[in-house]
Amino acid sequence: MKANIPEVENKRIVIIGGGFAGLTLARKLVKSNYQIVLLDKHNYHMFQPLFYQVATAGIEPSAISFPYRKVFQSKNNIHIRKTEVLKVEPENNRVLTKIGEVNYDYLVVAVGATTNYFGNEDIQLRSYPMKSVAEALTLRNSILQNFENILISDNAAEQEAMMNFVVVGGGPTGVETAGALAEMKRFVLPKDYPEIDFNRMNIYLVEAAPRLLGGMSEASSKRSYQYLMKLGVKVWLNAAVKAYDNDVVELSNGASIPAKTMVWAAGVRGNTLEGLNPEIIGRGNRIVVDSFNAVKGYSNIFAIGDVALMQNEKFPNGYPQVAQVAIQQAANLVTNFKNMEQDKTLNPFHYRDLGSMATVGRNLAVVDLPFVKFYGWFAWLVWMFIHLKSILGVRNKMVTFVNWFWNYITYDQSLRLIIKAKARPVKG
Amino acid sequence: MKANIPEVENKRIVIIGGGFAGLTLARKLVKSNYQIVLLDKHNYHMFQPLFYQVATAGIEPSAISFPYRKVFQSKNNIHIRKTEVLKVEPENNRVLTKIGEVNYDYLVVAVGATTNYFGNEDIQLRSYPMKSVAEALTLRNSILQNFENILISDNAAEQEAMMNFVVVGGGPTGVETAGALAEMKRFVLPKDYPEIDFNRMNIYLVEAAPRLLGGMSEASSKRSYQYLMKLGVKVWLNAAVKAYDNDVVELSNGASIPAKTMVWAAGVRGNTLEGLNPEIIGRGNRIVVDSFNAVKGYSNIFAIGDVALMQNEKFPNGYPQVAQVAIQQAANLVTNFKNMEQDKTLNPFHYRDLGSMATVGRNLAVVDLPFVKFYGWFAWLVWMFIHLKSILGVRNKMVTFVNWFWNYITYDQSLRLIIKAKARPVKG
Repeated sequence: MKANIPEVENKRIVIIGGGFAGLTLARKLVKSNYQIVLLDKHNYHMFQPLFYQVATAGIEPSAISFPYRKVFQSKNNIHIRKTEVLKVEPENNRVLTKIGEVNYDYLVVAVGATTNYFGNEDIQLRSYPMKSVAEALTLRNSILQNFENILISDNAAEQEAMMNFVVVGGGPTGVETAGALAEMKRFVLPKDYPEIDFNRMNIYLVEAAPRLLGGMSEASSKRSYQYLMKLGVKVWLNAAVKAYDNDVVELSNGASIPAKTMVWAAGVRGNTLEGLNPEIIGRGNRIVVDSFNAVKGYSNIFAIGDVALMQNEKFPNGYPQVAQVAIQQAANLVTNFKNMEQDKTLNPFHYRDLGSMATVGRNLAVVDLPFVKFYGWFAWLVWMFIHLKSILGVRNKMVTFVNWFWNYITYDQSLRLIIKAKARPVKG
Repeated sequence: MKANIPEVENKRIVIIGGGFAGLTLARKLVKSNYQIVLLDKHNYHMFQPLFYQVATAGIEPSAISFPYRKVFQSKNNIHIRKTEVLKVEPENNRVLTKIGEVNYDYLVVAVGATTNYFGNEDIQLRSYPMKSVAEALTLRNSILQNFENILISDNAAEQEAMMNFVVVGGGPTGVETAGALAEMKRFVLPKDYPEIDFNRMNIYLVEAAPRLLGGMSEASSKRSYQYLMKLGVKVWLNAAVKAYDNDVVELSNGASIPAKTMVWAAGVRGNTLEGLNPEIIGRGNRIVVDSFNAVKGYSNIFAIGDVALMQNEKFPNGYPQVAQVAIQQAANLVTNFKNMEQDKTLNPFHYRDLGSMATVGRNLAVVDLPFVKFYGWFAWLVWMFIHLKSILGVRNKMVTFVNWFWNYITYDQSLRLIIKAKARPVKG
């Protein structure tokens, strides 16, 4: 069965996924001569860099999520369908989705990356990932419920496991989450739960490599380590999680930590898309592309963003899986789609590293720009400014700003609600 | 097993439910000589009057929900437990909860009211209630998903049922929901879904009585009817829902409307609490109390708010189930608890009607004050002011204001996200 999408004479570009890569592409192509079809599981774009603030009750999901239909209001040239893609059929130039078949002239795979559990099923079942708004919200609900449970418990061993939080992975997500938990412990939780002794609460950050923030400068690694120590986070480097069972985290260095809550931010892998030649799947489950983001062996299929593996001398393992690469690859592909229309030669992708940054806590951040690195209060201001600027939509910027401002002056996060939308019972 | 709550010498008041009644009581008693225990299923107080705005993507759940622990930060005299009460044992002066037994010297039942389906199971299974933040969020998710489904469907009959929205109940919730849906149809949806013809969308408001807003003046009933007609809502008075099956709403006047979405705001009934003498349950499943809010036949059990049925000459069917009554009964009971401490005589409850109001849409509201009634733009401003003033917390006020201001100047609601927190798989 064909999905219900109008057929027009213009060539159709089907984009799978509306993250930084897919959404940038769609926005820049919506006024082109191509017909655009955007397929996504969700009806909104997510601003991933701030998931950790959703998880720690700093901002609302809606402040960092933006409905696609709002982005493309009143545009007739784009057809957005909230659905899941089941398979690509390159031989028929179509994708099979839950709402039927969708033909394409060009296919752009922008499905991003997901949590990598490195094959450990126990960890997958029992830890908290943070690769979607829903997952961040789930983590928030559990953290809050956890403290309610401590009040109820009369078992000392169980209480200890509930007072320990283990964050695995020393990348920006892990560092930022551990820092935010430490600030909750310091400023919010003792006021909310005067019945609990928070000297017993421990936050661990576990990283397998010898330093934090491996993608940033040595100086930033050191500084973020110092900041976390200052906030009371127990940082364990050169330690990997071997097992997680019965609420005990076992580490490769022999240590074990009883902990009900383990946040898993230890790595990502490319999302899988069935139907493509398995030989094009490379390192980290990413799709191997050439310097034009064309998928090896296909003339009309492209991959961009986190899922694309573009290897060259400078980046033998592919580009880092960050928003900047995704956005720049999308922009380059837009140029190339326009070149294709005019039978011009294609532009190869060139990455321009604009720098990177991470925030550990109030007034504590690290910023690496190409020609300068800085830390502390000013870095924190820059971090906030850049992130506010990048959030889609004026209302979202305003609401996020109000929240940040409020949290800053009150040393508080007020979004400590355990709310779940219910599924309605069977209809019909 | 006893619940884990410190035993002190002071007399203990156990409050079940933190709505307007229970929360007002707890806030005013927290500095008294009584030990306060607040039991609630949720960890937050909900501002019920604005559920309809959550359902229609106007504001976020967090803007109208307020964590109890934030209200009572650093207070040692109150013990908040997120749990469900299973049963009262008046003979033992204790309640049984999911976290164990809780003794009391005084018990205050403030469990509020829930949706009344009048025994119709089909309606209960298939319609959308709006008596909690989670239910409002569920309705929002379904409304948005519904339009995604229309795009996918190629069945004309199914599409028609998806384009019809039936709101049942002409009280403030029904009127406000129907009005908000009409504004979505007018200002938002056609831009979001240029592929759908919104002339085919119908919003029905069905009310069994001969007029809307039965609790307000005749003039307000008429005016709200006119406003709804102006917004294109089809208002059917003197019509009750007989059946709802196979996505068809059947009315007592013989009409039937195919509709996938039926919002049920047709009535409420007191929440049930096991263990009390069944003879004290009166009209609307409410608990019969005397003029001091004492439950008939018990010396140390009180009921306040929506669940309490206090009958007198002027209100033979009890007071209206509105926030004002709940707040005033709580305040009176606080005085009486203080009187009891000092062996003074108790004050009977006197209701001071401060007026009522409802909003239908932009610049369209009705306000009945004791000595003056007014309508339109000014009423709408007053409605907004009073509601902003009543929302707990400065941050919530600010965020709500930003949202309202933004929605007003842009004719838009930007919170059109279908987000669900997931339950984590089994742990252990």
